[in-house]
Amino acid sequence: MIPLGGVGEVGKNMTVVEYGNDLILLDCGGKFPEEEQRGIDLIIPDVTYVKDRLRQFRAILLTHGHEDHIGALPYIVPQLKDRAPIPIYGTPLALGFVERKLLEAHLDKYVELRPVQSGETVQFGELSAEFVHVTHSIPDACAIAVHSPVGTIVDTGDFKFDPTPVMGGPTDEPRLRRLGERGVLALFSDTVRVETAGSTPSEKVVQDTIDEVVAKAQGQVVIATFASNISRIHMALHAAQKNRRKVAVAGRSLEQSARVALELGYLDPPDGLLVDLDEVLRLPKERRIIVSTGSQGEASAALARIAAAEHPKIRVGHGDVIIVSASPVPGNEETVSHTIDNLFRRGCQVVYGALHSGVHVSGHAGRDELERMIQLLKPAYTVPIHGEYRHMALYRELSVKNGIRADHVLLPEIGGVLEFSADGATQRGRVPSGNILVDRLGDRGDPQVVLRDSTNLTEQGVVVVTLVVNRESGALIAGPDLTAKGLKSEHAIGALREAEQDLKRMLDRRKKGEPQYGYVVQRTKETVGRALYRRLRTRPMILPVVTEI
Amino acid sequence: MIPLGGVGEVGKNMTVVEYGNDLILLDCGGKFPEEEQRGIDLIIPDVTYVKDRLRQFRAILLTHGHEDHIGALPYIVPQLKDRAPIPIYGTPLALGFVERKLLEAHLDKYVELRPVQSGETVQFGELSAEFVHVTHSIPDACAIAVHSPVGTIVDTGDFKFDPTPVMGGPTDEPRLRRLGERGVLALFSDTVRVETAGSTPSEKVVQDTIDEVVAKAQGQVVIATFASNISRIHMALHAAQKNRRKVAVAGRSLEQSARVALELGYLDPPDGLLVDLDEVLRLPKERRIIVSTGSQGEASAALARIAAAEHPKIRVGHGDVIIVSASPVPGNEETVSHTIDNLFRRGCQVVYGALHSGVHVSGHAGRDELERMIQLLKPAYTVPIHGEYRHMALYRELSVKNGIRADHVLLPEIGGVLEFSADGATQRGRVPSGNILVDRLGDRGDPQVVLRDSTNLTEQGVVVVTLVVNRESGALIAGPDLTAKGLKSEHAIGALREAEQDLKRMLDRRKKGEPQYGYVVQRTKETVGRALYRRLRTRPMILPVVTEI
Repeated sequence: MIPLGGVGEVGKNMTVVEYGNDLILLDCGGKFPEEEQRGIDLIIPDVTYVKDRLRQFRAILLTHGHEDHIGALPYIVPQLKDRAPIPIYGTPLALGFVERKLLEAHLDKYVELRPVQSGETVQFGELSAEFVHVTHSIPDACAIAVHSPVGTIVDTGDFKFDPTPVMGGPTDEPRLRRLGERGVLALFSDTVRVETAGSTPSEKVVQDTIDEVVAKAQGQVVIATFASNISRIHMALHAAQKNRRKVAVAGRSLEQSARVALELGYLDPPDGLLVDLDEVLRLPKERRIIVSTGSQGEASAALARIAAAEHPKIRVGHGDVIIVSASPVPGNEETVSHTIDNLFRRGCQVVYGALHSGVHVSGHAGRDELERMIQLLKPAYTVPIHGEYRHMALYRELSVKNGIRADHVLLPEIGGVLEFSADGATQRGRVPSGNILVDRLGDRGDPQVVLRDSTNLTEQGVVVVTLVVNRESGALIAGPDLTAKGLKSEHAIGALREAEQDLKRMLDRRKKGEPQYGYVVQRTKETVGRALYRRLRTRPMILPVVTEI
Repeated sequence: MIPLGGVGEVGKNMTVVEYGNDLILLDCGGKFPEEEQRGIDLIIPDVTYVKDRLRQFRAILLTHGHEDHIGALPYIVPQLKDRAPIPIYGTPLALGFVERKLLEAHLDKYVELRPVQSGETVQFGELSAEFVHVTHSIPDACAIAVHSPVGTIVDTGDFKFDPTPVMGGPTDEPRLRRLGERGVLALFSDTVRVETAGSTPSEKVVQDTIDEVVAKAQGQVVIATFASNISRIHMALHAAQKNRRKVAVAGRSLEQSARVALELGYLDPPDGLLVDLDEVLRLPKERRIIVSTGSQGEASAALARIAAAEHPKIRVGHGDVIIVSASPVPGNEETVSHTIDNLFRRGCQVVYGALHSGVHVSGHAGRDELERMIQLLKPAYTVPIHGEYRHMALYRELSVKNGIRADHVLLPEIGGVLEFSADGATQRGRVPSGNILVDRLGDRGDPQVVLRDSTNLTEQGVVVVTLVVNRESGALIAGPDLTAKGLKSEHAIGALREAEQDLKRMLDRRKKGEPQYGYVVQRTKETVGRALYRRLRTRPMILPVVTEI
């Protein structure tokens, strides 16, 4: 077993499981870069190890449909396409999201999507994989038990033991217990919430909170959440029905998720309850619920535009209620606060985590639930994955407390080989692995994608674009300045000058009051990247550096 | 009354109170810039309004000794020095910190420090100011009641109602109640914790947690906290005495705070309990407690260096316990997590907020305590200060719930004049105000300080320094590149080239494993700033832009 991502970090989950001539991939996740990694759109795992073993490679298995488990597929599939059609297994919702992604990137021809229901087992040579239903913050999530001649390993995926999930049934404890009784060699466990004592509250808490807030609301209700959060749309529909409102969805990514969920029957609202945005906006305010993107304060998403009174259609003010149904991802705290401040400035009532804990709950198991998983499966070994280093270290303590021998808790590293045999487990060497940076121009199916790893990062050159802007007015104080390294063309100087002109025009066209920082970073990158490609046919790494003072 | 800072933001608290010919300043705070404001050391209020009225200006009054209430003094005092000696009033601890600051900046000759005890009243022409004891996370904090011919206004400073503070007595409720009975015109209230229901836990909780953790610890104990947090040193001494340990302090700013507190008697440990770092390090591990700086993950502070095994004296490992006794300030979450991860890598046990809520408590009033203040003072008007916009908006709701007329809750803005008269209150215009950016070279009393406001920000030019480094190895991928705008000297090009050489040498000298990001940003700024000043005798704004990929 080799993790190629998702250990010592949150995001880009991917694990290789290999026995003899059979190799499968569990999950294929991407990670959104931190704020200071300005030029980068997504970080994905290095799959060199798999590319070198295409003959043994059998399939990709997905635990659930979140970006950190499926988001790398559009970039990994082309790398494995000599093995096409690549079989991808997962529950229908996860595969629905995957299909949309791959269609958009024109990669659907390289894969064969094979939906499974939890409880099903699929054979891959000497390995077989069983999908076991777990609860998470997306419906139809699974743990995957991989049976091999040396024993069974269980990858929990992301899970919690939610006794009253809002969509689907509770975690399949009977099946987990039976696996434990038959003998589990190793448990690869989600650990991200090991810091938190007790159990994570049920999704039911969020439903109740939303019902309560909607029942009291006088004006419009806007519920902001993650793009893939089907269950919040479900909750909005529930609250709307009880309160004679209708629901619309705002934000392209959320609309797409909703469409997938409707097509597959995960959402099945009565006729006329889920309508399009224009229709909801023709209703009186007290009959509207809008589910929107932007719960992380992203500058270009619906909520930030609503808060800045810059949304093309949605206006909010006194009497309206905004529910921010998400926790800020580490690094996003300030942009979220800023968005909330703006909503208060508009006169809205804002219901958010710091004020009302019921407005969002985690999808991950608290410490008691992590213990329960160990007790159900009684593994010989535990391997903490899906967490930062501190989570892994704390999970080790928890394992020992639950009877696992200290030397049977294995702290993996990315690319580190964990070998299980009749004699026990050993950590044996490291395969090629690491971060691949995805750089793409435009966000709508533009095929111009460049993958960069540490060896070719700056092969096509680096262009640093520096802007200093006034934080309040957005006025340019200095720049734009383009500094290039390694542009190997006689036309480089002219191309840079053109790019600078394009950029100046773009910056002049900005509307006053436009959401600033993230928007400017993204648009700068696009504008300069396009100009240089047009002239030089090369894709240097563009690092937009926007300093607000 | 005119807030010149501290409204709609956390930090740089300063309020002008003026009646007839008498003008006093309440607090004189600085604000640490957010991470992306790379070139800036501190943000302070614009005091043009006060400079224009030096004849009426009577004194600066300080509520307590935290940076966001006293930190701007070294930059404001020189601006008001035509009025020297400037009387500064505060309790002895606050003035102790101020004295150290001003001595270091050679500004002590311009001020006259006048210590007051809580309960005292000082006259300034037709105004008089009464210091009322409150609890906070620093000893000897005060609210200030300003009595004027039109009525009494009360500025709470930062406060909570801590029934069992670890140093000093509880908030002087009888006095607040009496003020309320006599009639309070306006309450200017701390609001930063209005989002949180209930009351903030007592400092006693932290003492108990530290006692408990120290009693169980087998190895060294390191307690990381804020530089001014005298009360954590007090707690460490308490725990040390009970457990046959000795205490030392690591980190220059914390050492200075401890010295002030010892001199003034706020700390009064038995002989031999508080020793210097070298002495503590000669003791066996199980007899050591080290109180260190770096609770915010600051790259150059003691804790980050300890975590990276780069501290010149302190080494930690298995069996050692690290207590991170602070909450991450918004924007610092990731650096704090990174430091904690590193401590786990060293094998330490780490006790921090996400794991054990008792390890730190806020110094600010929860919602119930904010209500209690309103109920005690029964003001005609409330004015939320010391918070972001959302805090102010929520405090308005809370005021109305407590019987304040909706139109008697005034949401001030920076520079906005609130005028109180027999006829009521009006918001009347705005005086010159805003952010002044402090730019200094070196951090040890270097007198080379440049203040920049929006009009002169780039008067001496801007130099953007771009570096791209590998996140893991710290190796340079691109840069350093220096891009200058507005350097008005014929020697500019040569000077930039020299600065670039200096910078390259500095970067080459870095030790492997050295804490990277913040350290590189700070040292880059210093190196380039020094080189340019040496050659050009000018202080352009240096914006180091370090991108890690």
